[in-house]
Amino acid sequence: MQRPSGRKPEQLRPVRLTRNYTRHAEGSVLVEFGDTKVLCTASVADEVPRFLRGQGSGWITAEYGMLPRSTGSRMAREAARGKQGGRTVEIQRLIGRSLRAAVDLELLGENQITLDCDVIQADGGTRTAAITGACVALVDALRFMQREKMIATDPLQNLVAAVSVGIYEGEPVLDLDYPEDSRADTDMNLVMAADGGMIEVQGTAEGAPFTEKQFAQMLALGKSGIDELIELQRKALAK
Amino acid sequence: MQRPSGRKPEQLRPVRLTRNYTRHAEGSVLVEFGDTKVLCTASVADEVPRFLRGQGSGWITAEYGMLPRSTGSRMAREAARGKQGGRTVEIQRLIGRSLRAAVDLELLGENQITLDCDVIQADGGTRTAAITGACVALVDALRFMQREKMIATDPLQNLVAAVSVGIYEGEPVLDLDYPEDSRADTDMNLVMAADGGMIEVQGTAEGAPFTEKQFAQMLALGKSGIDELIELQRKALAK
Amino acid sequence: MQRPSGRKPEQLRPVRLTRNYTRHAEGSVLVEFGDTKVLCTASVADEVPRFLRGQGSGWITAEYGMLPRSTGSRMAREAARGKQGGRTVEIQRLIGRSLRAAVDLELLGENQITLDCDVIQADGGTRTAAITGACVALVDALRFMQREKMIATDPLQNLVAAVSVGIYEGEPVLDLDYPEDSRADTDMNLVMAADGGMIEVQGTAEGAPFTEKQFAQMLALGKSGIDELIELQRKALAK
Amino acid sequence: MQRPSGRKPEQLRPVRLTRNYTRHAEGSVLVEFGDTKVLCTASVADEVPRFLRGQGSGWITAEYGMLPRSTGSRMAREAARGKQGGRTVEIQRLIGRSLRAAVDLELLGENQITLDCDVIQADGGTRTAAITGACVALVDALRFMQREKMIATDPLQNLVAAVSVGIYEGEPVLDLDYPEDSRADTDMNLVMAADGGMIEVQGTAEGAPFTEKQFAQMLALGKSGIDELIELQRKALAK
Amino acid sequence: MQRPSGRKPEQLRPVRLTRNYTRHAEGSVLVEFGDTKVLCTASVADEVPRFLRGQGSGWITAEYGMLPRSTGSRMAREAARGKQGGRTVEIQRLIGRSLRAAVDLELLGENQITLDCDVIQADGGTRTAAITGACVALVDALRFMQREKMIATDPLQNLVAAVSVGIYEGEPVLDLDYPEDSRADTDMNLVMAADGGMIEVQGTAEGAPFTEKQFAQMLALGKSGIDELIELQRKALAK
Amino acid sequence: MQRPSGRKPEQLRPVRLTRNYTRHAEGSVLVEFGDTKVLCTASVADEVPRFLRGQGSGWITAEYGMLPRSTGSRMAREAARGKQGGRTVEIQRLIGRSLRAAVDLELLGENQITLDCDVIQADGGTRTAAITGACVALVDALRFMQREKMIATDPLQNLVAAVSVGIYEGEPVLDLDYPEDSRADTDMNLVMAADGGMIEVQGTAEGAPFTEKQFAQMLALGKSGIDELIELQRKALAK
Repeated sequence: MQRPSGRKPEQLRPVRLTRNYTRHAEGSVLVEFGDTKVLCTASVADEVPRFLRGQGSGWITAEYGMLPRSTGSRMAREAARGKQGGRTVEIQRLIGRSLRAAVDLELLGENQITLDCDVIQADGGTRTAAITGACVALVDALRFMQREKMIATDPLQNLVAAVSVGIYEGEPVLDLDYPEDSRADTDMNLVMAADGGMIEVQGTAEGAPFTEKQFAQMLALGKSGIDELIELQRKALAK
Repeated sequence: MQRPSGRKPEQLRPVRLTRNYTRHAEGSVLVEFGDTKVLCTASVADEVPRFLRGQGSGWITAEYGMLPRSTGSRMAREAARGKQGGRTVEIQRLIGRSLRAAVDLELLGENQITLDCDVIQADGGTRTAAITGACVALVDALRFMQREKMIATDPLQNLVAAVSVGIYEGEPVLDLDYPEDSRADTDMNLVMAADGGMIEVQGTAEGAPFTEKQFAQMLALGKSGIDELIELQRKALAK
Repeated sequence: MQRPSGRKPEQLRPVRLTRNYTRHAEGSVLVEFGDTKVLCTASVADEVPRFLRGQGSGWITAEYGMLPRSTGSRMAREAARGKQGGRTVEIQRLIGRSLRAAVDLELLGENQITLDCDVIQADGGTRTAAITGACVALVDALRFMQREKMIATDPLQNLVAAVSVGIYEGEPVLDLDYPEDSRADTDMNLVMAADGGMIEVQGTAEGAPFTEKQFAQMLALGKSGIDELIELQRKALAK
Repeated sequence: MQRPSGRKPEQLRPVRLTRNYTRHAEGSVLVEFGDTKVLCTASVADEVPRFLRGQGSGWITAEYGMLPRSTGSRMAREAARGKQGGRTVEIQRLIGRSLRAAVDLELLGENQITLDCDVIQADGGTRTAAITGACVALVDALRFMQREKMIATDPLQNLVAAVSVGIYEGEPVLDLDYPEDSRADTDMNLVMAADGGMIEVQGTAEGAPFTEKQFAQMLALGKSGIDELIELQRKALAK
Repeated sequence: MQRPSGRKPEQLRPVRLTRNYTRHAEGSVLVEFGDTKVLCTASVADEVPRFLRGQGSGWITAEYGMLPRSTGSRMAREAARGKQGGRTVEIQRLIGRSLRAAVDLELLGENQITLDCDVIQADGGTRTAAITGACVALVDALRFMQREKMIATDPLQNLVAAVSVGIYEGEPVLDLDYPEDSRADTDMNLVMAADGGMIEVQGTAEGAPFTEKQFAQMLALGKSGIDELIELQRKALAK
Repeated sequence: MQRPSGRKPEQLRPVRLTRNYTRHAEGSVLVEFGDTKVLCTASVADEVPRFLRGQGSGWITAEYGMLPRSTGSRMAREAARGKQGGRTVEIQRLIGRSLRAAVDLELLGENQITLDCDVIQADGGTRTAAITGACVALVDALRFMQREKMIATDPLQNLVAAVSVGIYEGEPVLDLDYPEDSRADTDMNLVMAADGGMIEVQGTAEGAPFTEKQFAQMLALGKSGIDELIELQRKALAK
């Protein structure tokens, strides 16, 4: 088995996390997994959605979008079509859930952080890149809130990162790019915390089902990828 | 640990699969997982969506809805609000993917089967009940197509069933009802084929992350539940 | 003239009213007019729409929907299409008006009852079945409100029922099923109260206009049908 | 009983039908029932909706709208709100059905006429004025089609007119204006053909139900009003 | 060069401003620029949009619509299509901006005036006719507010009028009608105040760009047209 | 008068045009006017909108969007709100018109180029930056079409650029940034071709009207800015 990119099965694409990519947001990170580029901004607001008001707890939510020509052929703009597609909704719910697991929402107080993840260029794995980059933007936003005395204690419990794993030509491979993703039988997205806690496991077989053994292999591969990504997040945040 | 229903951790709720529940659809099954009741209909059409035309392959898709008062407090009707919510979209995509894995789409020819899963009464686990019931409705639709000579060969590869597993008061339990679901830390939905192939694994921690050990326990519990459900599907289809 | 079902011109289909069909709603009735099956739930809320606030009066409203495969060929789901069609809007407005005539809205206090009428299986006459069933669900909701001390006095003024009449092959017939309805020249829907008061008369000729004599015959036939239906409502409510 | 306008119970408001009110449409009529003013245009198209294609039959449809300040207090513009309200939908369906009954759709050939009824100023009875005016615009459009040789034979079967009747302070009155309409217990809209054929009878009691005797009185009053209106249509068309 | 209408290059079409055209609105003006007829109503409300609340200042906004058959071929009704098109949005924003420049918003107090401009018949120049007519309706509404003691001082600063100018067959012409507009290379809309102040200049070349010299000629032509229009507004308001 | 940025009245912000900013689109340019950053992509399609089919002519259209946190406070995502706002619609129509003027649409053949202008970071002047950048992306797309033999002749007639001018503290200034824009009385957007032809002039006074003299000053200032921008486009395209 030869990966189209020549990578080894357990090899991530080159990952870059550029903080302060734009200047208005409380956190703004350009995350690159190879040719996949996602701009993740974190916006702080001092109020929570209606269902949480008066309960002393905060909220983290996410929105996801793709620029129309982030992809090989132009996609219709969701704002022009008048609604977000099913894939968009599914991904932004995943990002929101994943990042809420990173934070103690009670320590966040009655504040909300919105993570906007906009794909500038797509080459597979946009949702896992988005989670990984959004976590860094989130930390910058939490630091902003501490500097501004909006919160007294850091609500961050754990860094959170995500990676995809798949079965490509019968073998488990890490961090699929688009040529792999479009031909893989099975696709798993794994979201984990820095302490090894599992936050989201989504394994999907559109074609042939996968075996338990394959599942275990993918899980192991994914965990090693997460470890690398969290190390890269740490380095980016230390700058 | 005592489950609110008094069930043992590995015990399913009473499951019933009633075929021919309504008379117009090519497959029509009322599935009950305890107090959760979902009407699953399969509708056959002799054309496929545009992206598949002329390729000799079929398609299976699903739609999901909840009657406004299937739940404890009335939910706004999605038709009146003018759009389907994020949860609805996520669930109907899951049902569609799961059932496509049950079928050889090439043998289906250029035909489409739409699975409508409408929740009459909700008590937790509506998506897993929907998949389990929709599979039976799907088989009835495939039998109809064979009787009507729309297809020559049975495209069914495997029965498919789904069940939820969760960590409730620290212990893995099978097939969560609403009182358990609303208090569980972790929720996993497992979709598997009759031959043990895994189709979809979705483990989610909104609260505390889960450990690999818990994940393995949930997986084992889920597999035993799937085996029972597939046996029930077989019995229902043998009638 | 021979009716497709073999019924006599003045004969209703077998009518069944099953109370407590689902468990969450304050009133829940499955109404069957032959093969037409509609689930009617009544949901109580302790607030009224904005235009009534602070006026000491209550409100009754209705929503109507058809499951996609309640009909012979699958109908597009209104929630997926993003709006309710003209026929749906017209029917739910009729149901709401009809049931408001059953109740003294001032005695209802500042409470609202929403009647959801969802067609499980359609065979003609869904709107008249819905009104007849919703009235029973409404009474159950009013009894709930009295038990819960939300209201002191029963606001019910009259039971209300509805039936269709039409000119089929030149002759007036009662309670049209789908094969009759699709070929009838004229269709009249009649809503009346138990005391003989008329609430709504909707006679429509899409094809040839009808004469005054035919109109009088239809009215007489409809009244006899309403009497039977109200008797059936009484029996169901006495259980 | 004294009507606010001083009219006798059986007296119509001054009715005016101005043909060729605007210049682009194939038929364009301003209809005035007292202070109610509706612009009715008829637009001819040489194709029919999809469900009729290839069947050799034509179609008549209607759309209805109110200018935002046609009423005492400004109504939100439906185009800005992004959808037509329930009342609008109900009215435009009524207008369409009523005018289809005026015409032999087979003689119309595969052509469609759209009747746009836009309320310039409202003072009660906009739907009945709209039907009465749209019928005149329709005749002008049919004459246009004959001149242009789009059709060989006049498809008009009957002139059609509409009027409202109501119970105002206990007495039946013809052609309610807004002060009457807003206080009436019962409102009936009657659509009839020139030959006395009944096309649509819609009697509605929002408040107290009405008796059969009242219903018969309203019907008689309505018929005399229709006769007058059809005479006025004839005169307008003879000019 | 010969204009289709036989007008001289600097000649306006016959302009008529009919006040009190309908009876409900605080200002109601039918403006006619030749065959272009627009009904402009001004509606007064004693509250402002959220973004202005509590700031002591008022607001003027506009909405624009075309009746479906105001044009040569029928346009789809925006309310039925479920949204306002780009051209509509652009025009109503222009009308609103233009009229806000006519008024001292602080003197208006926390009140809002909505200008509805609905095109009854279109023959080019609907937006400039709308601004010119809406200004007269606005003055009537301001007079109403003074009579009703809603405001103490007249907030009107200047009458405002608008006119189109274009390059037709190489020559600048004033106030284009539809046959000219559809063939002109360049179209300029000019909005000016009675004191000569410029409010909006919109010159657009869809085809060949225009020169500075042409631009200057158009500006001069437009100014002379505005002077005439303001004189006509004055006369209409003096009646 | 001191500009907040310290620039001279006639001084542009530093302008950068980065070609091939993303890799999928046929043209992809990041344009920066100081802190305003807009990604402009040009997408080529070999078919035209319906209204142009079979006429041998091409089409250029544009869409515009702002990332939610491109601005100082987060803006709601238009895809999530379900429609594009009025400002968005107005801007994307302007961009489309401006670029159509750059090209001979007949030489383009039956092809369409879509220009997507997405604001990554906003600091005033996003629409003028978008036009200036989109023109460069357009040229790259035209070159692609020539290389791919989709067109034989270069349809470009002229480079097109745009700049804003305003009256800030009484003085005309070029290329307003956000602090200036939010306080300026008058805002003019000027779109011109390389040969000095004028394509679009939009001068707007929300506050006090402007004089003809100011208008002439702004025009002169704008022209000098356009000359500089076109020189920068040429240099970028020569690389």
